[in-house]
Amino acid sequence: MSVISVGTMAFDAIETPFGKTDQIVGGSATYVAYAASNFVKPVQQVSIVGFDFPKEEMEELKSRGVLLDGVEVIEDKKSFFWSGRYHEDMNSRDTLVTDLNVLADFNPVIPESYQGAEFLMLGNLVPAVQLSVIKQLTTRPKLIVMDTMNFWMEVAMPDLEETLKHVDLLMVNDAEARQLTGQFSLVKAAKSILKMGPKYLIIKKGEHGALLFNENEVFYAPALPLEDVFDPTGAGDTFAGGFIGHLAKTGDISFENMKRAIIVGSAMASFCVEKFGPTRLKEVTKADIDRRIQQFKELINFEIELV
Amino acid sequence: MSVISVGTMAFDAIETPFGKTDQIVGGSATYVAYAASNFVKPVQQVSIVGFDFPKEEMEELKSRGVLLDGVEVIEDKKSFFWSGRYHEDMNSRDTLVTDLNVLADFNPVIPESYQGAEFLMLGNLVPAVQLSVIKQLTTRPKLIVMDTMNFWMEVAMPDLEETLKHVDLLMVNDAEARQLTGQFSLVKAAKSILKMGPKYLIIKKGEHGALLFNENEVFYAPALPLEDVFDPTGAGDTFAGGFIGHLAKTGDISFENMKRAIIVGSAMASFCVEKFGPTRLKEVTKADIDRRIQQFKELINFEIELV
Repeated sequence: MSVISVGTMAFDAIETPFGKTDQIVGGSATYVAYAASNFVKPVQQVSIVGFDFPKEEMEELKSRGVLLDGVEVIEDKKSFFWSGRYHEDMNSRDTLVTDLNVLADFNPVIPESYQGAEFLMLGNLVPAVQLSVIKQLTTRPKLIVMDTMNFWMEVAMPDLEETLKHVDLLMVNDAEARQLTGQFSLVKAAKSILKMGPKYLIIKKGEHGALLFNENEVFYAPALPLEDVFDPTGAGDTFAGGFIGHLAKTGDISFENMKRAIIVGSAMASFCVEKFGPTRLKEVTKADIDRRIQQFKELINFEIELV
Repeated sequence: MSVISVGTMAFDAIETPFGKTDQIVGGSATYVAYAASNFVKPVQQVSIVGFDFPKEEMEELKSRGVLLDGVEVIEDKKSFFWSGRYHEDMNSRDTLVTDLNVLADFNPVIPESYQGAEFLMLGNLVPAVQLSVIKQLTTRPKLIVMDTMNFWMEVAMPDLEETLKHVDLLMVNDAEARQLTGQFSLVKAAKSILKMGPKYLIIKKGEHGALLFNENEVFYAPALPLEDVFDPTGAGDTFAGGFIGHLAKTGDISFENMKRAIIVGSAMASFCVEKFGPTRLKEVTKADIDRRIQQFKELINFEIELV
C-alpha cells in the first residue's frame, strides 16, 4: 500500500558531545522516507527545498522507491536550515539557528498521482498546513498519523486542536503530551488527548522507549539500551517512518499490528542514532533490521506462569 | 528456601504533591519484608529499632512469616527517622530530616538460627556493615543481592568497592550507576560495574522500568504506566523484596528466572506507590498480584514474524 509523507527536507548542523557536523542533509520527511522505504513502496513525498538541496540525495531517495512529484524546488531560495547543540544526556538540546528559508512559503499541493494513498504521515509542520493536506485528499486515508511540537501549542493552539480532530494517531514526546494537556501523569495525558480527536496516541520517551495508547489498551515498547547515542537528530522521524512503513506494508491497522509497527520503528530509530544524520539509515540492510528486531524480542521476552 | 533481609526498620514523614503524612512506618527492610513474604517464608529479618517502633507492626510482620530474631530493640533510643519532600515529577526529592538514632549503633549480628539461608538481601546501609553481614555467614548464600546509594560513593568508596567484590547482584538506580562508574551510557556503566564484582546488575529507572544485565545479556522490564503515583517511598525496596521473594520461592537463579523476578518486583512496586508508606502492600492479595503480573504481560507482549 502507498504512503504520503509530508514534512521538511532540509539541512542540519549538529553538535553533540561526540563531535560536530557541517551542514548535512536532514528534515523530518527525509528521515521518514529513508526509514519507511525499507518496508513500502512508493513513499510519496511532499516537501519543499531550495536550489541547494543535493541532487544526489534526490537520486538516492528515488532509487529507494521514494516519489518526489510532490517536492517543490524553489530555484532562488535556500533550503530550510536548523542547527542545534545536544546536552550530555542527549535528551535535551539548544537550538542555535533556525533559518526557515523556503519553508516560510510551504503550501503543499498534493499531486493528482498521489490521490488514493492509504496512509498519510504528517511530519511536524504548522498545524494549518497539516490540515490543508488532509483536506486536499479526495479519499480519506485508512490511517492519518500526525507529529507536532510544543512550539505550536504556544503559538497556534486553536489550529492544532482543529487539526487533531482530523487525525487518527498523534505521535508526541512525553514533554509535549504533558504540555498539550496540562497533565503530568502520562496516563491522564493520554486520556485527555484521546478525547481531542485521535483514536491512538504514541508517546515517545527517547531512551526510555515509547507508549501506545488507545481507549482501553496500552503497550510499552522499550528502547534498545545502546552503548553510545551518537546523534539523536531524526530519531523520532525515523521511528515514525518505520512505524508507518510497517503498517503500510501489512495494510493492518489493528492495535496488535501497531505494537509490531512500534518495534519496527524503534529498531529503525536505534540505527539512526548510531551516526550523524541519516548516514546509518542509508547503510542498513534487511538482515540488519531483522537482527535488530530479534534483539528487541530478546530484550523484553519473558515467560511467567501464575501458580 | 529462606531469605535473610538486612536493612532499616524506621519511621518516615513524607510530603508529595498529593498530601503529607505524619510519622509512618518505613525502612528498607520493612518494605522488603512486606513484599517478599508474599512469596517465601521465612523472611529472616536483621535490623535495629528503638523503643518507639510499634509492637503491632512487629506482630503483623510475624503473622506474615517474617522472623524477628535478628531485630535488635534498643529500649532507650528512638528508631531511625527520615523525612522528605517529593517534587512534582516524583523522580526526585529533598531530604528534610535524617535522624539516625539507633542506626548510628547498628552492628548487625546474624542469629545462629538464620545460618544456612540460601538468599541474602542487603538493603542500603554503610558498606562495611553490609560486608560484616556477609562475613558472618558460615555457608555462603546461593545469591547475595545488594542495594546502595550515592552517599556511600562519596564518603566510603573504598569500602563500597570491597563489598561489591563479595556480592552477586547489585541493584542501583540510573543516577547511581552513572555516579559509580563515571559513565553516562547505562550500557557502559553496566559493563564497568560487572567488572567490580557482581555477576548481575539491575538498574532501576523508576517510572521508566528496570534493566537487568549480565555479561552477555540484557532484559528491559517496563514500569506499569500509572494514573497516579501517590508516594514512591519504598518502591525500590518493594521491588527488591518481590525480586528476591520470587527467586527464593523458586530456588532458581538463572537469568531467565531473574527476568520473571523483575516482573514480580515491578508488580509489587506498582502497588507500593498507590498509597502512603507500606499501606497498600498490607492490603494486596495473591489474586491482586496475579492480576498485576498479567497486566505486565499484556503491556509488553507482542508477536512479530520476520518475513
